[in-house]
Amino acid sequence: MRVSIPLEQAYKLLNHGPVTLVSSAHGGRRNVMAASWVMPLDFSPPKVAVVIDKGAYTRELVEASGELVLAVPARLMSAAVLAVGNCSGRDGDKFAALGLEGMSTAKVGAPLVAGCVGWLECRVIPEAHNQQTYDLFLAEVVAAWADERVFQDGRWIFSDDPDDPLRTLHYVAGGQFFVTGQALEVSPAAQAA
Amino acid sequence: MRVSIPLEQAYKLLNHGPVTLVSSAHGGRRNVMAASWVMPLDFSPPKVAVVIDKGAYTRELVEASGELVLAVPARLMSAAVLAVGNCSGRDGDKFAALGLEGMSTAKVGAPLVAGCVGWLECRVIPEAHNQQTYDLFLAEVVAAWADERVFQDGRWIFSDDPDDPLRTLHYVAGGQFFVTGQALEVSPAAQAA
Repeated sequence: MRVSIPLEQAYKLLNHGPVTLVSSAHGGRRNVMAASWVMPLDFSPPKVAVVIDKGAYTRELVEASGELVLAVPARLMSAAVLAVGNCSGRDGDKFAALGLEGMSTAKVGAPLVAGCVGWLECRVIPEAHNQQTYDLFLAEVVAAWADERVFQDGRWIFSDDPDDPLRTLHYVAGGQFFVTGQALEVSPAAQAA
Repeated sequence: MRVSIPLEQAYKLLNHGPVTLVSSAHGGRRNVMAASWVMPLDFSPPKVAVVIDKGAYTRELVEASGELVLAVPARLMSAAVLAVGNCSGRDGDKFAALGLEGMSTAKVGAPLVAGCVGWLECRVIPEAHNQQTYDLFLAEVVAAWADERVFQDGRWIFSDDPDDPLRTLHYVAGGQFFVTGQALEVSPAAQAA
C-alpha cells in the first residue's frame, strides 16, 4: 500500500499546499509537529523549505540530527494533526501519547507517521543564517513514499466522494481545515480572453 | 468588495496553500506569473517566501523594483492562472494579452490582479545568497487585501456550493488543479486515542 516514489515526483506530494506533519528523531528521542508553512523548493534534486519555530522541541531534534520527515496526513488524521500542536514532545513521547505509529524509513532516522498518504525523507541543507534569522529550514528530499490508493503515476487520484477519509488537508487556524476538494482540469485553450 | 486586511491576518490568506499569481512592475513594464511554491514565513511583521526562477521575466522586475504582489486567484480565474504560465512577459504585456485588469495598490508599484480574492503587497528582503542559490525570495507584507465576499473577520468563508466560482485553487501540474474543498472544524477533544 505504501510505495516508493521516484525522487523527481516528490514535489507533487506538496505542490497543492497540504498541511504536513514534521517528524524527527535523535539520540533515542522522537517527535512530531504540524506544519503548514512548507513548500517545494526545487525539482531535481528535490528540495523543500519548512518553517520550524525556535521554541519547538522538533527544532532541537532536527538541528541535532540534520534530518526530518515531512508527511502529508489524510483527513482521517485531522484530529491527530490538531493534537500534535496542542502538546509538547518535551512532556513525553507524542507518538505514544496520541496513539501514533512510526513506520520504518529508507534513508533517515526520523519515523514515517502512519495514517498519512505521502512522506518525504529529508536531509537538512545547513543554512545557519536562514535558520537563526527566519526559522527557515531548507532540506533535500532523499526518499519519498506515497499511499498508492491515492497517489499513482505521479499524481493524486482521490475518489469522487468529497467525504473520502483519504483526501488531504489544508490548515487554516484554530482547528479549522479545508479538505482538498474537486479536481479541475484546465486546458490552455480555455483562456478565451 | 475589496477590503483592507489587518497585517496580522495576512498569513491567513496563504496558510491553506493556494496557488498564487505574482505580479511585478518596474520602469513602466509589468508582468504576472503563477506560483505554487509560496508560503507564509512569519506572523508579525508578516513575511512570505516565494520561489521565482532565474529564467522568469518576473525575476527581472522583482529584482529591479524590490517589490511584488502575491494574489490568490479564485476558481473563476483558473484558465488565466494556466495561461500566465504559458507565455512570457518578454513577448508583450500579459495583462493586455490575457484580458487581465490591474488594480491600484497602497504601498508598492506592482498591480493587484483583478478577479483574485486575496492580495499581499510585499517588499523583498534582500538575501542575495537565497536568491542566487535557491531562487528563493523572502519578502515582508506591507499591505493586504481581500474580497469580503469570501474573507471576513480573518477567515475564509466560502459558500456551501462546491462549484462556487469564488473558491480558491491548489495547483498540481499540467493544467490540473484542486478546488479548496469542504471546511472541517476539529475540536482538540476529538483526539480520542
